[in-house]
Amino acid sequence: MRIIAVGILFLCFSIFSSLSSTVSNDKVPPRFPSSVIRPEQLSLATKRGTKLYKARYFTQILDHFNFNPKSYQTFQHRYLINDTYWGGPEKNSPIFVYTGNEGDIEWFAQNTGFMFDVAPYFKALLVFIEHRFYGKSIPFGGDKDIAYSNASTLGYLTSTQALADYATLIIDLKKNLTADDSPVVVFGGSYGGMLATWFRLKYPHIVIGALASSAPILNFENITSPYSFNNIITQDFRSESENCYKVIKGSWEQIEDTGSRSGGLELLRKSFRICKNYIDADALESWLTTAFVYTAMTDYPTPSNFLNPLPAYPVKQMCQSIDDPTTGNDSFAKLYGAANVYYNHTGTTTCFNLAYSPDPHGLDMWSWQACTEMIMPTDGNNQDSIFPESQWSYSQRAAVCKGYYGVDPRPNWITTEFGGHDISRVLKRFGSNIIFYNGLRDPWSGGGVLKNISKTIVAIVAEQGAHHVDLRFATSQDPKWLQQVREREVKIISNWISQYYHDLANHS
Amino acid sequence: MRIIAVGILFLCFSIFSSLSSTVSNDKVPPRFPSSVIRPEQLSLATKRGTKLYKARYFTQILDHFNFNPKSYQTFQHRYLINDTYWGGPEKNSPIFVYTGNEGDIEWFAQNTGFMFDVAPYFKALLVFIEHRFYGKSIPFGGDKDIAYSNASTLGYLTSTQALADYATLIIDLKKNLTADDSPVVVFGGSYGGMLATWFRLKYPHIVIGALASSAPILNFENITSPYSFNNIITQDFRSESENCYKVIKGSWEQIEDTGSRSGGLELLRKSFRICKNYIDADALESWLTTAFVYTAMTDYPTPSNFLNPLPAYPVKQMCQSIDDPTTGNDSFAKLYGAANVYYNHTGTTTCFNLAYSPDPHGLDMWSWQACTEMIMPTDGNNQDSIFPESQWSYSQRAAVCKGYYGVDPRPNWITTEFGGHDISRVLKRFGSNIIFYNGLRDPWSGGGVLKNISKTIVAIVAEQGAHHVDLRFATSQDPKWLQQVREREVKIISNWISQYYHDLANHS
Repeated sequence: MRIIAVGILFLCFSIFSSLSSTVSNDKVPPRFPSSVIRPEQLSLATKRGTKLYKARYFTQILDHFNFNPKSYQTFQHRYLINDTYWGGPEKNSPIFVYTGNEGDIEWFAQNTGFMFDVAPYFKALLVFIEHRFYGKSIPFGGDKDIAYSNASTLGYLTSTQALADYATLIIDLKKNLTADDSPVVVFGGSYGGMLATWFRLKYPHIVIGALASSAPILNFENITSPYSFNNIITQDFRSESENCYKVIKGSWEQIEDTGSRSGGLELLRKSFRICKNYIDADALESWLTTAFVYTAMTDYPTPSNFLNPLPAYPVKQMCQSIDDPTTGNDSFAKLYGAANVYYNHTGTTTCFNLAYSPDPHGLDMWSWQACTEMIMPTDGNNQDSIFPESQWSYSQRAAVCKGYYGVDPRPNWITTEFGGHDISRVLKRFGSNIIFYNGLRDPWSGGGVLKNISKTIVAIVAEQGAHHVDLRFATSQDPKWLQQVREREVKIISNWISQYYHDLANHS
Repeated sequence: MRIIAVGILFLCFSIFSSLSSTVSNDKVPPRFPSSVIRPEQLSLATKRGTKLYKARYFTQILDHFNFNPKSYQTFQHRYLINDTYWGGPEKNSPIFVYTGNEGDIEWFAQNTGFMFDVAPYFKALLVFIEHRFYGKSIPFGGDKDIAYSNASTLGYLTSTQALADYATLIIDLKKNLTADDSPVVVFGGSYGGMLATWFRLKYPHIVIGALASSAPILNFENITSPYSFNNIITQDFRSESENCYKVIKGSWEQIEDTGSRSGGLELLRKSFRICKNYIDADALESWLTTAFVYTAMTDYPTPSNFLNPLPAYPVKQMCQSIDDPTTGNDSFAKLYGAANVYYNHTGTTTCFNLAYSPDPHGLDMWSWQACTEMIMPTDGNNQDSIFPESQWSYSQRAAVCKGYYGVDPRPNWITTEFGGHDISRVLKRFGSNIIFYNGLRDPWSGGGVLKNISKTIVAIVAEQGAHHVDLRFATSQDPKWLQQVREREVKIISNWISQYYHDLANHS
């Protein structure tokens, strides 16, 4: 397989393709960004018969860290709010804020049921703040054509600016609600969890604690092995069956061999029910890789509809298709069955369009972030990997980014600004009130904090858990361990709030 | 007195003049920035017969928080280094870093003798990092004419960018020295102390602790009273003698009355030995105000040469001149004597030039900072103030800044980014290893942290201390209390370092 995926992103599996060992952007425009997420029904908005939130807008400044005239431009910054459960400012009832990540905030709100589930208990106001440059929070007059056009406008899309947005917005919101003394707790999953962590660390005067779910804050520089991500995916499939792993591992060469033979592409098209408009062995491999990566990430114990509609335990489902004795030795039939779990759980798709990568959640601009500060090495594959062996190559990433955006990454910036090296030692005596949830079946967990750092900076590790499963709406089918994770989170957050009230009473 | 000083800055006593109740910048260009610091001999460089440091340069990025093409411009960032006492990287010997403030770093290095004094004990490497846009650390090719020309270039002069500069430089320096495991402690006085505090709070992964001397981190928004600053100056003079206070307090009206009479300005000129080129009652009052403000600030127990050459206990000296019975009822003679303490301690000046404001330490650009983020209300004078009664006026500051730089201040930004409100409560369970030194004779102490916040975030308060007196070179004449302050600081820093080594041994 010549495609080397160097941009396994949280939600948007961008693929940087390199058709020769030396990257030549003149000849080969990289297929980047290329989101391969399938559309889904946003059905949760009406879940439980009530409106989950109302949308509000805040006038946000374009650049917090510069005072040149351009910095003063503003944009309409969207946030969602639900005050159904709030005890109100008189009682200093808490405010739970979701620190939005790389997509439409409605989608994250709808997939962070945990906050809705626990709000009544805490009498909490719920606020979901969108990340700048995503959803409807688009600078430059809300015009994506301008905002996304080049590095001069995209330059303002950074994690530090987003955090400062959140700080500014929360302070203003509390003032408007006359809720100055209401404690704020932040929540976030994935990149949103990284933001929640960093927000607590950098803005302790604004938030009393952070629940960071599946936040790979250590997946930078040389802290986490670049093989870790794919090793975990490998392990996920291997844990279901050795045969399942072997079939997938063996498939890449088979697809390439078939694709390069006369009539081979037609065979592949038929085997995988690819639509007639376009087929290519590399694209097919990417399409399959995406399915394996995201299925591993969202290997939830109950049916889900986060990226695609999926059954419970989808990795197991995939492996059952692969291990199905009725397909005999037909690897392609086996793989087709597995792909169907991810791409066609509802059974309504008649053919799969490799040329079309819908982006219903507006995740595309993550590719800009992945080309500037979010240099997260995840693309190494060692000999045992379920994917073809490959090395993480920073220089390749840099070259692709230069070619596509004309931008040079700053690969050391995140650790300079937020740390990461020796985190246990650094935070042992600094900071407090962070929960790091990680599920060990989640490929991102390799870059997460998996051990308690101090009494108040704690790790909750779920062996069977996937990517921020704790943040999903609770269901009656949730396994015991998941219920226990959430109970523990609620208990810890309760303690933060109690302690805050105690300190408030003693200091004022 | 119509001059309302709204820009009492750390070192640079900038005066925003307003000759009518409505500010009209078209008609009255504000005398701003107007540094009234007298030149001094930078004699410390050769103190003790050795060179204090060597200068080095680091290629620094222009904008850390933006990825547009302009952000990638670089400049030569100066730092000073002294490795005479360093134990070296093999022993993980510490690195002491001064977080440079608003002026030439050489000047701060020469006036931070404490670091040189304690370096042998700690076997510390000394590093003094210049603040961007000051000294020789000028962006835009090192050309001040360009860098200082307008808001588009000055926009990059911010505290957050400076802190990110320090982070980037320190990480690189440690790498080059192969001193990855050497603990870094930051030191700073005044604005440099604010930066040291914020650096520890925002970059705990880079520094293990901060000695913040006379850092008025609370002199923002509505945290510290705008009367506090001048109240302390009032108290300083009043503590010497009630008569001293009364003479000064009564002088302003007298000067104005005299100035407005026919021949009055000539009388003032003779009384105060003002040079013939220029005199004006307002300018004379500013000139006197500057003397009182900075004498109070640097009311050191030994002779000093920080802003101007001064005798020991200069406030006492001033009041002795004022209380001198030989001058009878001649207020101007008394005030002249007081002014002489500040402006002419060496006795060599034959006339004082009100039209000339030298800026030997390159402090001018503080006025930009005071017009953007450093909105520190210090200019209120209540009825009892030694200066004429006046109100702190944000709108006046904003108008002057708009007129001068075309910039709108962001008065809430510093507290949004760094906090300040309810600091005891916020930091009680967050952060560690900060020493806040304050001397109560220092007008800035009103905006300082004067109480212990936690076991490791502590306040050292010296009743008789002035502005960052602890950071000066030790002398044999230093009073006992000052020796004790420094001993306590050394002890606390020793503990940080010991604990760091302990943690290092247990984590690696």
